[in-house]
Amino acid sequence: MNIPQSSFPRVVIIGGGFAGLAAAKGLEKQELQVVLIDKHNYHTFQPLLYQVATGGLEPDSIAFPLRKRFNDVENFFFRLTEVTKVNTEKNEIETTIGNLEYDELIIATGSTTNFFGNTNIQKHTMEMKSVPQSLNIRSLILENFEEALLTSDLEERKALMNFVIVGGGPTGVELAGALAEMKKGILPKDYPDLDIRQMQINLIQSSSCLLKGMSAKASEKAEDFLINLGVNVWKNLRVLDYDGKTVTTKGEDYFRAETVIWAAGVKGKTINGLNEECVIERAARIKVDAFSKVVSYNNIYAIGDIACMTSEENPYGHPMMAQPAIQQGKLVAKNIIAKLFNKEQKAFIYNNKGSMATIGRNKAVVDLPKWKFQGVFAWFVWMFVHLFSLIGFRNKVIVFFNWVYNYIRFDRETRLIIRPYKNKKKLGE
Amino acid sequence: MNIPQSSFPRVVIIGGGFAGLAAAKGLEKQELQVVLIDKHNYHTFQPLLYQVATGGLEPDSIAFPLRKRFNDVENFFFRLTEVTKVNTEKNEIETTIGNLEYDELIIATGSTTNFFGNTNIQKHTMEMKSVPQSLNIRSLILENFEEALLTSDLEERKALMNFVIVGGGPTGVELAGALAEMKKGILPKDYPDLDIRQMQINLIQSSSCLLKGMSAKASEKAEDFLINLGVNVWKNLRVLDYDGKTVTTKGEDYFRAETVIWAAGVKGKTINGLNEECVIERAARIKVDAFSKVVSYNNIYAIGDIACMTSEENPYGHPMMAQPAIQQGKLVAKNIIAKLFNKEQKAFIYNNKGSMATIGRNKAVVDLPKWKFQGVFAWFVWMFVHLFSLIGFRNKVIVFFNWVYNYIRFDRETRLIIRPYKNKKKLGE
Repeated sequence: MNIPQSSFPRVVIIGGGFAGLAAAKGLEKQELQVVLIDKHNYHTFQPLLYQVATGGLEPDSIAFPLRKRFNDVENFFFRLTEVTKVNTEKNEIETTIGNLEYDELIIATGSTTNFFGNTNIQKHTMEMKSVPQSLNIRSLILENFEEALLTSDLEERKALMNFVIVGGGPTGVELAGALAEMKKGILPKDYPDLDIRQMQINLIQSSSCLLKGMSAKASEKAEDFLINLGVNVWKNLRVLDYDGKTVTTKGEDYFRAETVIWAAGVKGKTINGLNEECVIERAARIKVDAFSKVVSYNNIYAIGDIACMTSEENPYGHPMMAQPAIQQGKLVAKNIIAKLFNKEQKAFIYNNKGSMATIGRNKAVVDLPKWKFQGVFAWFVWMFVHLFSLIGFRNKVIVFFNWVYNYIRFDRETRLIIRPYKNKKKLGE
Repeated sequence: MNIPQSSFPRVVIIGGGFAGLAAAKGLEKQELQVVLIDKHNYHTFQPLLYQVATGGLEPDSIAFPLRKRFNDVENFFFRLTEVTKVNTEKNEIETTIGNLEYDELIIATGSTTNFFGNTNIQKHTMEMKSVPQSLNIRSLILENFEEALLTSDLEERKALMNFVIVGGGPTGVELAGALAEMKKGILPKDYPDLDIRQMQINLIQSSSCLLKGMSAKASEKAEDFLINLGVNVWKNLRVLDYDGKTVTTKGEDYFRAETVIWAAGVKGKTINGLNEECVIERAARIKVDAFSKVVSYNNIYAIGDIACMTSEENPYGHPMMAQPAIQQGKLVAKNIIAKLFNKEQKAFIYNNKGSMATIGRNKAVVDLPKWKFQGVFAWFVWMFVHLFSLIGFRNKVIVFFNWVYNYIRFDRETRLIIRPYKNKKKLGE
């Protein structure tokens, strides 16, 4: 892997998401060699992926080149590769570009879509966990509308204009809201020869409420907002299968749809080679103690979505979101430095800053620890929190400008099929 | 193709580039049905593709959704498809989504890369005529640097950092300049563990000067600028072959390089079904008269790169650039309207507004009809002309902001490998 030997201890971080990035930042300017490994050369700001999928933002403004972030940092190395295995006896990771020894290892591999073992669903539905996946959704939506224009078969046209989103968490809710905004403001203008009223947006949730992690008020309000926007909200409905044509459910309901987005669950992106004891079957996360240390190892840590740190308040681990990831990343860096200087390490205490989701124009729900509110003000709060969490000044300015522009003009201009998804062979290059 | 029958005559335009777009605009608000066909759902601002390829601009800011441009236009229809044949006897085009009759047909299919029949070169070199192709180059450049870090084989590392651009026209010159800027300002920071001095940028021109269509002064100055930026300019050197590893030339020079960009020529993107007489072998363009009418037809026109309209000043047709395309598009629209009202049609007179090319920071060459200048002021002129030629307010603002940002920060931030080109299978999704 061509990483120079150093007299300093080597910390290897797998994953440049929220958790890995926070850890790498925390380890800057120390007597340490830091190696960050990711299969992308950029950090993805996942909370805004749904805006890329719906043509509201350029993919390049929610991604940030990882090398650039650490341009000025000495003893920092980035490698673009995938880790295939951890060899805990040799203190070594194995990757597609060679092996690398570590003194301390931080696993921040994040999460991936959970299809709960259903290969049909895995094959035919769309995921939205990465920039390329979001671009695929963007292409597919537009390709389906182009196709809907062409068919005289009414059933087929309906299926092409029928969008099913499975999962009523923040991803599903925000995506459904954005699609509803497209239906209102953009698609009737772009496709005057189509009856856009036939476009259906179905949001399916297996349990009895949306946004399960949030307050009852937020959940109710989000549902109201969606219904007012024309989204069909289905609760207590469990999806059974999707063969590429029809979504079947546990009840009698079925949906003939060409676009099904699977946002019904995530699971840890586990790594080979760890002791079986430390991997929890539930959501495939890695069991860690209060210091983010993987149980039964002394120099391996797991942080972010992949880590399952249980406490009284969080018996199944912290929510798989940016905040716990960032906080764990910061603390694990401090604890590794403390370990070097033989100082005391601190146990993790999650500072729950709250959670929020936006449903559309002027509509959001915000749960702060001491204040829960919904509507226009919540929407402003949502925007500013997301804007300031973005990495990079350029990205902030461009996202802000796009939002202002889209708001004033009721528009989403990046509705481009750059890489066709459905008609790859037919129109691709 | 599901285009409604209309009592108005139907004008079909094939291609939404500069020429096709100008024609479609000129036909707005007439008693006509206009059908625009393109294989992309967006217009590409080709002069800035090299900035996408080198991480200076987002792809989405030089593309503009075609449907949006004609949102408010009645009797306008867009179809996303490729035309496979023209049936001139039936007045019909054949496409992948069905046939369509026309009353008047405008061929504005543009141009494609000319490999002069060398299939090796076609297979192994990179083209830069579309957004996806430019993104492929962006990915490949970055992937090669990531790989150069890994190898201990010095020859291989040099080949990975060796860039060969074949063709000294505007595309080749601008791309070479942009790569040189990356070499200076960005790559040494991103890859501190690589010796960036080993990066070579070779610009190969078969004739005795760069920017052949421009003045001798512009050509000389462009060469000076490039040499000062560290580009190796090779003149009177003809490339013979490239096997994916080594570029061989007619002389003794050869280049071991992993990235070869072919900007050595374009040819018309011809269309099947036209009379053999009207297709000129030279550069595969379609012979038209001074009214853009394809010879031997009464209702078929060709405009832009694909059209070859000869005159005393342009014995081989107009240069394959934006200006003749836009001017021909505007006039053909007027002439079609004149034909409808039995008015007199006007012959095309090319208003040569001049040409320009930028080489890098503060460096450009501009040839106006009465004034030729080079340097900082030329660079400002280049920027503002390109900025104001972009379609869409949003695109203009974002490109302008990116340029200011890149200028002040000596940066190009969209150096993202969103879709890997080389390691598609290894790292793609």
